[in-house]
Amino acid sequence: MIVELISVGTEILLGNIVNTNAAFLAEQCAALGLSCYYQTVVGDNEARLLETVELAKSRADILILTGGLGPTQDDLTKETVAKAFGKKLSEDQHTRERIEEYFKSRGKKIADNNWKQAMVPEGAIVLDNDNGTAPGIILEEQGKTAILLPGPPNELKPLFSEQVYPYLQAKADRVIRSQTVKVCGIGESMAESMIEDMITGQDNPTIATYAKTGEVHIRVTAGAESEKEAMKLIKPVIKELKNRFQEYIYTTNENVTLEQACVDLLLANDLTISTMESCTGGMIAARLINVPGVSEVFKAGYVTYSNKAKRKVLGVKQTTLKKHTAVSAKVAEEMAQGVSLLTKADVTLSVTGLAGPDGGTEEKPVGLVYIGCSVKGKTKVAEYHFSGSRMKIRESAVVAALTLLRQCVLEYFSEVTFGNGKQKKNR
Amino acid sequence: MIVELISVGTEILLGNIVNTNAAFLAEQCAALGLSCYYQTVVGDNEARLLETVELAKSRADILILTGGLGPTQDDLTKETVAKAFGKKLSEDQHTRERIEEYFKSRGKKIADNNWKQAMVPEGAIVLDNDNGTAPGIILEEQGKTAILLPGPPNELKPLFSEQVYPYLQAKADRVIRSQTVKVCGIGESMAESMIEDMITGQDNPTIATYAKTGEVHIRVTAGAESEKEAMKLIKPVIKELKNRFQEYIYTTNENVTLEQACVDLLLANDLTISTMESCTGGMIAARLINVPGVSEVFKAGYVTYSNKAKRKVLGVKQTTLKKHTAVSAKVAEEMAQGVSLLTKADVTLSVTGLAGPDGGTEEKPVGLVYIGCSVKGKTKVAEYHFSGSRMKIRESAVVAALTLLRQCVLEYFSEVTFGNGKQKKNR
Repeated sequence: MIVELISVGTEILLGNIVNTNAAFLAEQCAALGLSCYYQTVVGDNEARLLETVELAKSRADILILTGGLGPTQDDLTKETVAKAFGKKLSEDQHTRERIEEYFKSRGKKIADNNWKQAMVPEGAIVLDNDNGTAPGIILEEQGKTAILLPGPPNELKPLFSEQVYPYLQAKADRVIRSQTVKVCGIGESMAESMIEDMITGQDNPTIATYAKTGEVHIRVTAGAESEKEAMKLIKPVIKELKNRFQEYIYTTNENVTLEQACVDLLLANDLTISTMESCTGGMIAARLINVPGVSEVFKAGYVTYSNKAKRKVLGVKQTTLKKHTAVSAKVAEEMAQGVSLLTKADVTLSVTGLAGPDGGTEEKPVGLVYIGCSVKGKTKVAEYHFSGSRMKIRESAVVAALTLLRQCVLEYFSEVTFGNGKQKKNR
Repeated sequence: MIVELISVGTEILLGNIVNTNAAFLAEQCAALGLSCYYQTVVGDNEARLLETVELAKSRADILILTGGLGPTQDDLTKETVAKAFGKKLSEDQHTRERIEEYFKSRGKKIADNNWKQAMVPEGAIVLDNDNGTAPGIILEEQGKTAILLPGPPNELKPLFSEQVYPYLQAKADRVIRSQTVKVCGIGESMAESMIEDMITGQDNPTIATYAKTGEVHIRVTAGAESEKEAMKLIKPVIKELKNRFQEYIYTTNENVTLEQACVDLLLANDLTISTMESCTGGMIAARLINVPGVSEVFKAGYVTYSNKAKRKVLGVKQTTLKKHTAVSAKVAEEMAQGVSLLTKADVTLSVTGLAGPDGGTEEKPVGLVYIGCSVKGKTKVAEYHFSGSRMKIRESAVVAALTLLRQCVLEYFSEVTFGNGKQKKNR
């Protein structure tokens, strides 16, 4: 079954916004086992939209349109699609009442042009929109299906997930399921070489690697007649990936972030953590605190950007700073230990480095970062050489810190050793 | 002059990546005064790509294609466009030498299929790619222009900005220029109502408002025969916007962020700053530290997520915490003053709030945030009610904190008063 995506909106053509809706819908359609061959963006222009809809009708079974369902004169998706499908528009009483209620509950006055949003093509299925005034619309005609959805992502996503996805699932003759294995501490080239035989040999499931900052996500995708069948194909591949990557894998759940995996690990081992950041400026603490429930483990975070702050707040020795300079393994070590003494946290993380663009020298270039991690008094310091913009270097340092945290805690508690991308369990 | 954008790549159709290239190119084309009516995404499929190119040729003057210039079998943009334009491919010696050099300098072995990338359509203009092996290509034929560019954004952007933009600028018969006024501390509805007459009355320049988290960006866009003429049209509108929004405007430079404006303000008044964050977890410090040169002003940052940390690190009174609870104006005030005493910073920011999703009560719901700012010992605390996800509430709090910081410093040093969205200068 073939689907085509049409995004309506002049603001996309002008590059004012990035078309995230298309990526969201494309991913959803792929999961539903639908084939998508074209995505088009067209402006708020009736003639061009009509041309686009006619073309899509000629080559796809399902059309999904987003945008152009608002109350203004520029909003003409419904009218145009109705025209292409030979349908008249008439007022839907249920939708009209919902629009009235929407404005009443917010204490706002209804503008006259909002009534336009209650008009729907004859015979269409109306989908209630809980986050806006424009209802979604499904039109089935001449063996084709047109699905019209609001443009704002906070209206589109719930509507699609709750109502359109089940509708399409019933139509589809097969399903596609994926499971993602997330790896940290191994580069993309290395990771790919470790599973090269698995990638080339596979047809269903397929295996694809995606490089993220400091991480590699390996997605296993299978198509089958049912979800159960698809997962049956995926399971042995996941098992083999676990065998090859072992503790470098921090989760096999698509929705779990690295920081959540770190917080879970700390909780599981009943550990508290404090952080001491310099060039990462608070980003590590911010990521940890993004995990709901982190209050059980997080003691305190410090951002000591200047040498003076490092000395005053943490007691890093003046002699150390003079001899080694702020960006050094020795200072990273003293920072990690200083936070430990100061806060009595079981685990501490420290970062000191040169994020650029200025400040680099031949001996200490931009991108040089030292990260320290101490677990129950045992401190490890690692040296890194990152590249890219100031933001990119900082982001790389944050991921490296969380990776080091994981590795140090696992090495302390689980008799696991991390080597040069290969890892052996101590038996 | 009409341009059409074609993004080639199955990964976009599958929703694996968001099509940021199209947004970048669309914005560039708009600035060049080119009209864009369609954007299309098509996969690595020769028949469908050919169909798309033929359709674009029939309705646009300039085609810009990205992607599909790699060395694998799936990469067929060049071959397909050459076919559509009736051109043969032949090896470009210059490009071949560059590819050899590219691999040699990285100490890598050239795979056989890389030679494919040295093939170019006859008569094409070859654009050297400094960040990859695939050259850009400009093909002029039959009154049409096809511009083929590599997919990876870090290769596309420099190539386009340095070589394609000037090429297109020479072709264009008019230019479009924009200037953006960035406002903080006023909501979008209020901002729009303050300039409603300006928006409806204008045709060239046009005025558009864009809501960002805690900010409103107002873009003034004018079309004219030259850059000079366009800026002449824009200037009086900017002047009027400044008149209406006054100090709520933090910059009229597209590239300046709110944190940079804050750091500039601190530098201008010779002030140092320390921060104390609870639910924002380090995000405020992280944003300030993103500004190069912030080391002149930033003293220290603290992340005290738990009550204990607030007491131990900052000396917030146990009695205060018991009486008012952590999320209160009194605690925000003591936090701001505590940091001031601890670090001797001239300016301090404190945040305490409920980011959710758990932890809210009827009296203190999720989204309730108190932000404190002290300038030279004078402390102001503001109460906020944010909504949305945990991340959204935290981001809203960060922007509100930077906004409050700006306002407090301006009120102290510039005899400016901020009221309910209206602002009067003390004379």
